[in-house]
Amino acid sequence: MSASKTDSYQPTPRTRLKRLPKRAHYDRQTVHAILDAGFVCHVGYTIEGQPYVTPTTYWRHGDRVYWHGSSASRMLRNIAAGVPVCLTVTHIDGFVMARSGFHHSVNYRSVMALGIAHAVTDAAEKEQALDAFVERLFPGRVRELRPPTRQELKGTMVVGMDLAEVSAKVRTGPPVDDEPDYALPVWAGVLPIATAFGPAEADPKLTPGIALPEYLRDFRLEPK
Amino acid sequence: MSASKTDSYQPTPRTRLKRLPKRAHYDRQTVHAILDAGFVCHVGYTIEGQPYVTPTTYWRHGDRVYWHGSSASRMLRNIAAGVPVCLTVTHIDGFVMARSGFHHSVNYRSVMALGIAHAVTDAAEKEQALDAFVERLFPGRVRELRPPTRQELKGTMVVGMDLAEVSAKVRTGPPVDDEPDYALPVWAGVLPIATAFGPAEADPKLTPGIALPEYLRDFRLEPK
Repeated sequence: MSASKTDSYQPTPRTRLKRLPKRAHYDRQTVHAILDAGFVCHVGYTIEGQPYVTPTTYWRHGDRVYWHGSSASRMLRNIAAGVPVCLTVTHIDGFVMARSGFHHSVNYRSVMALGIAHAVTDAAEKEQALDAFVERLFPGRVRELRPPTRQELKGTMVVGMDLAEVSAKVRTGPPVDDEPDYALPVWAGVLPIATAFGPAEADPKLTPGIALPEYLRDFRLEPK
Repeated sequence: MSASKTDSYQPTPRTRLKRLPKRAHYDRQTVHAILDAGFVCHVGYTIEGQPYVTPTTYWRHGDRVYWHGSSASRMLRNIAAGVPVCLTVTHIDGFVMARSGFHHSVNYRSVMALGIAHAVTDAAEKEQALDAFVERLFPGRVRELRPPTRQELKGTMVVGMDLAEVSAKVRTGPPVDDEPDYALPVWAGVLPIATAFGPAEADPKLTPGIALPEYLRDFRLEPK
């Protein structure tokens, strides 16, 4: 990102945090780091007045998030038709154990992005976007794989949404108790929560002699 | 649950899975096990045509799910007013590494519940529900804590939603590749993904000599 570019998303009445505003972040660096630390989002969309929340994998490129699935998916067909969408990414980092039930909390990082998504219709752009998704997680894997067929690309829908109306929310650190409660004989602190990957389990049908690729050993999803 | 009770939720046109129906489950046992294996859900609701997806903690009691927060929360105030809601719980269990990009997948367990939530207004019922939330995660903690004040209970909203229109979706196991692709020299299998808890970090302000409670050692969230 060029240094001259605005380094924050502009909060709107829909994304500005009213409660606990000190947990709010609108700067690109924080928003992008949270997005890049995950690979599953929850997409919200409304059909005939009923909201639906669908978990799906996603990836970010610049100021755009992408997700994909079957061209027959109800979620994707509705979204590509231009309905308003909310994409939320959440990382849970710990249970915050306070001296009263009221001050118990959770450490977390989350991003909420509002907007309208569009289908990526150009075949080359679609293939490039799908490759970027795989490469972000598993650098080097795309060139190992059998390339997609025309039929597979046709059966896969990729949608992209510009990051414009976006907010992040972050809580870190130990519990914050009412001052008199610190004297209580109650254990307080944080129980960290993290995502653990591996060890990899070979497909029972794996051809003998194929080594586990480097990108699957000690797998970590680090912000790029 | 009594043996005479129906052991499945009735799928509706809104919850019946049309694609990949073999991944669908409607039986109470599967739905409840997925709900009880988690503590953070994503709640979807619509305000003036815009869907929002908010991550929040939840707990289940019988055929009802509860969540809570500040009485000033936009999410809770709207939901308690009776707007349609979608509550989704997702556990990601592994990256499924196939021999083609197209057949890559994710192992997961998810539940989607549609309905209308209601505020728990009775003070005793509200306190009981909040206690149940803490006890489910940390058995024995409620009696260690400073009890809630009347003001704290007033400032906390608890909402409950009946589990009625519910579906679960589950994918497990190794990749499923196109038959000719099994001969390709590509590593295939599953990279397991799990949630790791601990070790606990004491509050810097913790009174010396207070031992870590048993329920925070080797913490696991097992389905009850």
